[in-house]
Amino acid sequence: MSILVLGTVALDNVRTPYGARKKMLGGSAAHFSMSARLFAGVDLVAIVGKDFPPRHIKFLEAKGINLKALVRGQGKTFEWSGEYKGDLNTAITLNTELGVLSSFRPRISDEQRKIKYVFLANVDPDIQRHLLGRMHSPRLVALDSMNYWINNKRRSLLRLLKQVHIYVANDQEARSLSGEHNLIRAARRLREFGPKMILIKKGEHGVLFYSDKFIFSLPAYPAEKVVDPTGAGDTFAGGFMGCLAKAKEINMQNIRRALVFGTIAASFNIEGFGLERTSRLTMQELNKRLKQFKQCTMF
Amino acid sequence: MSILVLGTVALDNVRTPYGARKKMLGGSAAHFSMSARLFAGVDLVAIVGKDFPPRHIKFLEAKGINLKALVRGQGKTFEWSGEYKGDLNTAITLNTELGVLSSFRPRISDEQRKIKYVFLANVDPDIQRHLLGRMHSPRLVALDSMNYWINNKRRSLLRLLKQVHIYVANDQEARSLSGEHNLIRAARRLREFGPKMILIKKGEHGVLFYSDKFIFSLPAYPAEKVVDPTGAGDTFAGGFMGCLAKAKEINMQNIRRALVFGTIAASFNIEGFGLERTSRLTMQELNKRLKQFKQCTMF
Repeated sequence: MSILVLGTVALDNVRTPYGARKKMLGGSAAHFSMSARLFAGVDLVAIVGKDFPPRHIKFLEAKGINLKALVRGQGKTFEWSGEYKGDLNTAITLNTELGVLSSFRPRISDEQRKIKYVFLANVDPDIQRHLLGRMHSPRLVALDSMNYWINNKRRSLLRLLKQVHIYVANDQEARSLSGEHNLIRAARRLREFGPKMILIKKGEHGVLFYSDKFIFSLPAYPAEKVVDPTGAGDTFAGGFMGCLAKAKEINMQNIRRALVFGTIAASFNIEGFGLERTSRLTMQELNKRLKQFKQCTMF
Repeated sequence: MSILVLGTVALDNVRTPYGARKKMLGGSAAHFSMSARLFAGVDLVAIVGKDFPPRHIKFLEAKGINLKALVRGQGKTFEWSGEYKGDLNTAITLNTELGVLSSFRPRISDEQRKIKYVFLANVDPDIQRHLLGRMHSPRLVALDSMNYWINNKRRSLLRLLKQVHIYVANDQEARSLSGEHNLIRAARRLREFGPKMILIKKGEHGVLFYSDKFIFSLPAYPAEKVVDPTGAGDTFAGGFMGCLAKAKEINMQNIRRALVFGTIAASFNIEGFGLERTSRLTMQELNKRLKQFKQCTMF
């Protein structure tokens, strides 16, 4: 089973109380892939620039990621510079250079059009819709976005929401798009926009899943050392989608399991800068921590 | 089994997006009692003023609370005025009139000195220590405090922490007293101050329990309508202590169960102003919601 992920492959400049990294491999699609790959095949759809280091290509290939739809555009790779302070809950964006991202038009093969699991990570909703329109009857489509698109391409985003099964948002985005403070109400409102399933990521406070049939609330894994939270949300999504793709049937039990694996995968992501930790993550480690997580949450 | 609770009985003026109430019965000991009474006998140790309405006394008596150690001082009852906005997560204190609280010296009977379960709700740590010194070998002592004492009577508070089994704090207080942002680290640091068990209340994000033997993390009950969160933390503590007192043995399983019951009790508290909801709460309702909570959190 394969997952097609549309998103960014970026060069990240990150500073946290634990140190700093320059131009490390990042981006939503890269983070998503690192956890999803443990459960399923991953086809990555993104654009990089002329400056993108070949070692990053080799690295992704070595992780088994299908890069057929990773195009190289004229110009610079998307670059994000950010900083975390204090409790590392909120990123302070210092600089964003879109580079080739502003002219991105995803191209996928006929083979890739048949992929059944699709994750539309945060890029321009018009690009997301374009890609989705190319897919041939996907079974499960999840969509992530961000405040910038909620504020600047709201209509386009709302139109797209009618076509996806799962809307993935962080708490701020969920509140912003729904106009509701309370997260259950926010989820219900977002449900009315179209997606049958709403997944609200609350960072260190865990995750809330909402559907007409059931609500599920999960704390985060109690993490002691947060080195760099960049990409935790996408790592979560990768574990979640990966687990669902592997399980094949989408039912309550599998969704819960997928939420738990997403949570565990994200808990590894924050332990290192960028992909440092998740790039060497194994299924054994996931399963081991899952047991510890159960110990910490079951009653 | 009985619990002795030292704290405040107050007149609260509260405004939230759902309305406002003037001089309603509130205070840490009152909120604690409303949930603890469902599990155990409650002996309330507090002070009120000359102005305290007799109907509140009758109300507390009707709920089965032992008021032998509720003294009536010269002066006005402690009065708190606060407001909640937006997501109702943080109270904005508009006014605090200590009144009789500033001259409070708790007095308990010889019978009460033998009570095995003690909850020292948020009052001056010197008053807390005075009362604790009067107790005759209690089995379980839990302590709550607040930022004001952390900042202004830190030494007194630290001295007291060595004498209690459980330190109950909200996330801000835990961070403030420990000097650690990360809550697991904060809990570990607080553990070093003396208490074997650390309980960090995270409001709408649930609760974190820390001991040398195990860590337990629980989300809050997914509540859609938060009318007034005042006293939610004390209602939680009341359910928690009540459940432990009823269970008698203090082991991992009973602590988990107590944390769950505290969480459920608090979820009722926020549904109404002051004690409106918890004053008519029944064990049947607690058990029913416990089942729903399990549905929402178990995997």
